[in-house]
Amino acid sequence: MEKSRAERLMANAEGLDAIVILNGGSPFLDSTFWYLTEAAGGTFEGSLAVVGRDGVLDVIVSTLEEEAAASGKGNVRVYSTRIERDNYLREALKGAGEVGFNLHSAPYSMVDYVKRTAGGIKVKDASSAISATVSVKDAKEIELTRKACWISSRVAGEIPDLLFEGVSEKEVAFRMDMRMRELGGTGNAFDTISAFGANSSKPHHSPTDYKLMKGDTALFDFGTKYDRYCSDMTRAVFLSRPRKILERAYETVLEAQTAGIEKYMDGAPAKDADLAAREIIDGTEFKGKFIHSFGHGIGMDVHQDISVSPKSEQILKEGNVVSAEPGIYIPGVGGIRIEDTCLITKNGCERLTDFDRRITFV
Amino acid sequence: MEKSRAERLMANAEGLDAIVILNGGSPFLDSTFWYLTEAAGGTFEGSLAVVGRDGVLDVIVSTLEEEAAASGKGNVRVYSTRIERDNYLREALKGAGEVGFNLHSAPYSMVDYVKRTAGGIKVKDASSAISATVSVKDAKEIELTRKACWISSRVAGEIPDLLFEGVSEKEVAFRMDMRMRELGGTGNAFDTISAFGANSSKPHHSPTDYKLMKGDTALFDFGTKYDRYCSDMTRAVFLSRPRKILERAYETVLEAQTAGIEKYMDGAPAKDADLAAREIIDGTEFKGKFIHSFGHGIGMDVHQDISVSPKSEQILKEGNVVSAEPGIYIPGVGGIRIEDTCLITKNGCERLTDFDRRITFV
Repeated sequence: MEKSRAERLMANAEGLDAIVILNGGSPFLDSTFWYLTEAAGGTFEGSLAVVGRDGVLDVIVSTLEEEAAASGKGNVRVYSTRIERDNYLREALKGAGEVGFNLHSAPYSMVDYVKRTAGGIKVKDASSAISATVSVKDAKEIELTRKACWISSRVAGEIPDLLFEGVSEKEVAFRMDMRMRELGGTGNAFDTISAFGANSSKPHHSPTDYKLMKGDTALFDFGTKYDRYCSDMTRAVFLSRPRKILERAYETVLEAQTAGIEKYMDGAPAKDADLAAREIIDGTEFKGKFIHSFGHGIGMDVHQDISVSPKSEQILKEGNVVSAEPGIYIPGVGGIRIEDTCLITKNGCERLTDFDRRITFV
Repeated sequence: MEKSRAERLMANAEGLDAIVILNGGSPFLDSTFWYLTEAAGGTFEGSLAVVGRDGVLDVIVSTLEEEAAASGKGNVRVYSTRIERDNYLREALKGAGEVGFNLHSAPYSMVDYVKRTAGGIKVKDASSAISATVSVKDAKEIELTRKACWISSRVAGEIPDLLFEGVSEKEVAFRMDMRMRELGGTGNAFDTISAFGANSSKPHHSPTDYKLMKGDTALFDFGTKYDRYCSDMTRAVFLSRPRKILERAYETVLEAQTAGIEKYMDGAPAKDADLAAREIIDGTEFKGKFIHSFGHGIGMDVHQDISVSPKSEQILKEGNVVSAEPGIYIPGVGGIRIEDTCLITKNGCERLTDFDRRITFV
């Protein structure tokens, strides 16, 4: 029989007697909770999931979350008082000494609560084990990610129809968000970046009332969730012909992305893709203008697990989902970024956001 | 001169030499960071805000966030390496012994990082001081909240136009979300609850493909953000006449909400509103069917700071923004909840989501 997600997690967590995944109040909710329980919906504030050494999953929730928890996996323990919660927790952690937490996200006071309540446990960082597990997507996860990417790619194809002289960054972002929902998306994976003209030179620009002008770059970084799984893509187009330097930047970024994507495959060091793309950009007039990493893991969170940067020591694995997003940023002039969500396969990778990448003048 | 937000925070934090607000990776971002910096936009992953005893604010961010940080308050320190970040942090915490954190939300590993980096500090819980500060809204915050509430109230008025036999929960939720954005909302404050028929008896129901039928309750719990500030409201209407028991439940909830809201005023114990509403519901055939608290604080997070529950020991203050949301839930039949976002004033409260609450048959 195939191993459960909880069993796969513990296989990656040598030396730990148990792993506790816990949620604070919204928005401090750990997607690992939904990964393990596969619960449909639910908020699960103040809920805990406890995985024992043998992969047995206990899910401790308040009465308000009983039904949502029942839709998923694990032994659901419903508490209506704090004392009940404490008891369920103690029971789930009985005999455990070394207990792992997702320390990168677990609220300090919640870890402290578990420590005080269970007594005699040692707090360990399980975030690497969690990353190693959730970063290798199973068939169901790939299917949901594929759907999210299909929606984004469709909307990418509609971008030219949304652009005209005088339309604002905010208006286009809004239309794109609507279309992702209309096509079945369950909500934005992140706030859409819509950046025109010189604003596109800021990688994290928030949409403003700036109005599109002829010669402007129009850059969009956007993604949807589909049943919790994220897509992430970026396209930059031009409203009529831009300055020549921006066209050259576009072709350079496209070449860099292609070179990076060629390094994406099972067993490859993650940094190879970044270095390949960076080498191309740094071999041009745009040396030093690629000011962030080439990629990151994507899953239930849009930034997850895997770092595709020059110093990354991670090795890519079949089933990883990673972005490929080189960029060139020229302050005061504009920026170009091309990004796709890629699935690592045995011999290469599949560009799940498969929309055309050629230079486009609207 | 009026005190800055950072100064007001320290006035509430007796005994602490400094307070550190820190962000993990998205979604583990602390809204207090934006409260203090008043930065427009920005993601600020891995950023820190340090408030000294005298209310001086240092904002430590990576180069990617430099521009967003510069739009706000505080002394912005931009790091491009970890060593630089460490140095800025040590400098900001120089001489501090007792250092407060928002331990309810701060990721364990980030607190640990500050402890190791600054050396010799004592970790203290500043979450009460933070709550006491952010829960009293200033004029700018009230204005933004008012706008968010205006948008929700407008959409509440359009609900009857969206309902017809056969429309699904998901479709109506989608239309409402679109309308909130069209009216200027900057994104959902939370996932809209759209619950028809028996589904409305589950307070945290996620929208499904269930199709509306005659006699069904149609309950909507929804809110928007406006420049980071949230609204939160619930209305339940009926598609033609429902079972008599649901009409009686509606009138009871409305009476309970009114009684609770009458207790909302500066200086009143928060629990009084809950107890007043509960007394009314428990005095009817619906005894015991009000299964959650009467209200919660609302701000940059939709659940914040203030608990309006039977056991709350908090005292309401002018400038607090709280929900008023009694409900009656009859499993297998349906539920009724009426919720408004209320601003506590000197002598009472203002219902910011001021849409009509009378029973409505579509």
